[in-house]
Amino acid sequence: MDKVYLDNAATTKIKADLVRESILNYYDNINCSPGRGGYQDSLAAGRIILDARQKIADLFNVQDIKQIIFTHNITYALNMGIKGILKAGDHVITTTMEHNSVLRPLKSLEKKNLIKVDYIKCDKKGRLKPEQIEAAINDKTKLIVLTHASNVSGTLMPIKAVGKIAAKYDIYYLVDTAQTAGIYELDFENLKADFLAFTGHKALMGPTGTGGFAISKKMATELEPLIEGGTGSKSDLAEQPNFLPDKFESGTMNTMGINGLKAGVEFIQETGIKNIRTHEQKLAKIFLAGLKKIPEIKIIGPANLKEQVPTFSITAGKRDLGQLSYELDNKYNIMTRSGLHCAPLAHQTLSTFPAGSLRFSLGYFNTEKEIEYTLNALKELL
Amino acid sequence: MDKVYLDNAATTKIKADLVRESILNYYDNINCSPGRGGYQDSLAAGRIILDARQKIADLFNVQDIKQIIFTHNITYALNMGIKGILKAGDHVITTTMEHNSVLRPLKSLEKKNLIKVDYIKCDKKGRLKPEQIEAAINDKTKLIVLTHASNVSGTLMPIKAVGKIAAKYDIYYLVDTAQTAGIYELDFENLKADFLAFTGHKALMGPTGTGGFAISKKMATELEPLIEGGTGSKSDLAEQPNFLPDKFESGTMNTMGINGLKAGVEFIQETGIKNIRTHEQKLAKIFLAGLKKIPEIKIIGPANLKEQVPTFSITAGKRDLGQLSYELDNKYNIMTRSGLHCAPLAHQTLSTFPAGSLRFSLGYFNTEKEIEYTLNALKELL
Repeated sequence: MDKVYLDNAATTKIKADLVRESILNYYDNINCSPGRGGYQDSLAAGRIILDARQKIADLFNVQDIKQIIFTHNITYALNMGIKGILKAGDHVITTTMEHNSVLRPLKSLEKKNLIKVDYIKCDKKGRLKPEQIEAAINDKTKLIVLTHASNVSGTLMPIKAVGKIAAKYDIYYLVDTAQTAGIYELDFENLKADFLAFTGHKALMGPTGTGGFAISKKMATELEPLIEGGTGSKSDLAEQPNFLPDKFESGTMNTMGINGLKAGVEFIQETGIKNIRTHEQKLAKIFLAGLKKIPEIKIIGPANLKEQVPTFSITAGKRDLGQLSYELDNKYNIMTRSGLHCAPLAHQTLSTFPAGSLRFSLGYFNTEKEIEYTLNALKELL
Repeated sequence: MDKVYLDNAATTKIKADLVRESILNYYDNINCSPGRGGYQDSLAAGRIILDARQKIADLFNVQDIKQIIFTHNITYALNMGIKGILKAGDHVITTTMEHNSVLRPLKSLEKKNLIKVDYIKCDKKGRLKPEQIEAAINDKTKLIVLTHASNVSGTLMPIKAVGKIAAKYDIYYLVDTAQTAGIYELDFENLKADFLAFTGHKALMGPTGTGGFAISKKMATELEPLIEGGTGSKSDLAEQPNFLPDKFESGTMNTMGINGLKAGVEFIQETGIKNIRTHEQKLAKIFLAGLKKIPEIKIIGPANLKEQVPTFSITAGKRDLGQLSYELDNKYNIMTRSGLHCAPLAHQTLSTFPAGSLRFSLGYFNTEKEIEYTLNALKELL
């Protein structure tokens, strides 16, 4: 069999055909800076950015397209949301299931004694009860940071219930959608989120170098930009403009990447998020049932499709998982990822620290045949 | 005539053929995250990053490839270099010819009363005398920030002489090479720079979404990362690794863009920087001579190829320069940029504030015929 790619939680390798076309269309026909020059090609580059902003605003139900900010990956977006809003004395609530792109910015502010952080411990399947968040709130709590789904166990978090709590206490609410945008409906207004960070190159099917965030107007007023510079606006001022989106978008945009991302979002809208999820869950059901039949395998996390995205972590007794991942690649052309997946506290929570797990993350372009083939490979290797 | 692109100071529109091929080669054959998974395609993505790092280290004569850090544009690099090193009480020296990507980060730290900045006033042609820098040094001076060439008038700055001064007083030295990397030889060691910021999408011919910096090991130890997150290394730690390059590279890299940038640098090395500059200067000589013959035109800046890069700003009496730029595009397909070019203090220095100038910035793929055609268009319009 040809290559089987099961590392979609890192980057989607197979994307909609339109994404490749859009990248090339920009490169061959436009290939210049948007919003800087007044010539036709520069205006066309500007329209790409505008269209992409509109598509993403529609996808996440954000009222004003200016609330969509592009960054170069979701890590930048998360750093901007976290470091730009927190001041000395603030308290933050997050969970042990977060990625290092959330933990490391928080840890560095903690280490400087600027903030205090409660890392709410999730259960052994990575699950969080909303009331755990509520119980941790104090009068210094400025921000709640929560991933929509774990990148290790796939566990879905109660983002809507936590949004209600954040709104009730008037606390800024940041949701990390790295593992769900493009597969799950995300309604920014309804979630009562202030900051929804998204990645471009995973299920949204954009190329690398894309991502960003949606931000509430309230948080946008208070959030300080981490990066300042040329915006092509208010160029008479040596100070950053204070309006959206320019306040948070400095320097030449990755217009080539954003045109690819726009095409990815178009594909998702045309295909329908529900249809994408239905297909992925059909594959996930087969995979999960198959995994359960292999006695050597222990599934880490819910092992229940209602409680997780189609990302599965396993251990296999005393088998070295790096070696197992290597053999899957080397003998079967199956691409997976072993280790700690940049989420050490999640692995501690799931009792897979420090050895980690072997992760299989499914995507829309995977097929039933590939899933069966992978299960067979596992049976042969174990 | 087909389109004539004279906005190379913003982005090079026409790049080496190999750049397009490399972007597609990554997209079609690799298209996954580097350094995260252990499978063949992920390792291939990792090799791209490694090769690109090596190529850029060679280009700038940087000893250890780990000293090369990729960011998503030069604005991010400059913000990292400036905001990551300055502490309360520090003094900074820069010039009035800098871009907003330098001015705005400095202004925001000044506004918070954290730092003091001397903006050394350059002369009416944008020129700086190194002794002006030396005279501004005091015992709090932590950093000197200097562009290699103005993006408005093209004026070259005495980066080598200032490097000697910085070394003499043991002050960190940051050089912004946005307008010169790929056209002028840049020797990091010889310049005695601590931080050399570069953009990928201008003369280095990479696609948008690329850039970065070279950093001295001394400054790297002290510089705090502005962005922290997953690095694929030390994933057991919820703290950012403190080694190069991971300390400053978080989140999924723009491997597609970096593969294009690598190809751009290869093209430059094969063609030879000197040959590139010779060709650009041949065009610049024709253009400058032609401009001087049009009585309505006033050339802003040195108007002397020994003192500037092939970027020319003009005014034309009372003519609206936005209108003139529009007519060049609309009637002649010539792409230029009018306005303030994200450099308000430079325009104040050059006495072109607030109306700005009309900028023509040449690139390696421009031709003599295009230059003659542009001069004719200007004659017809003025």
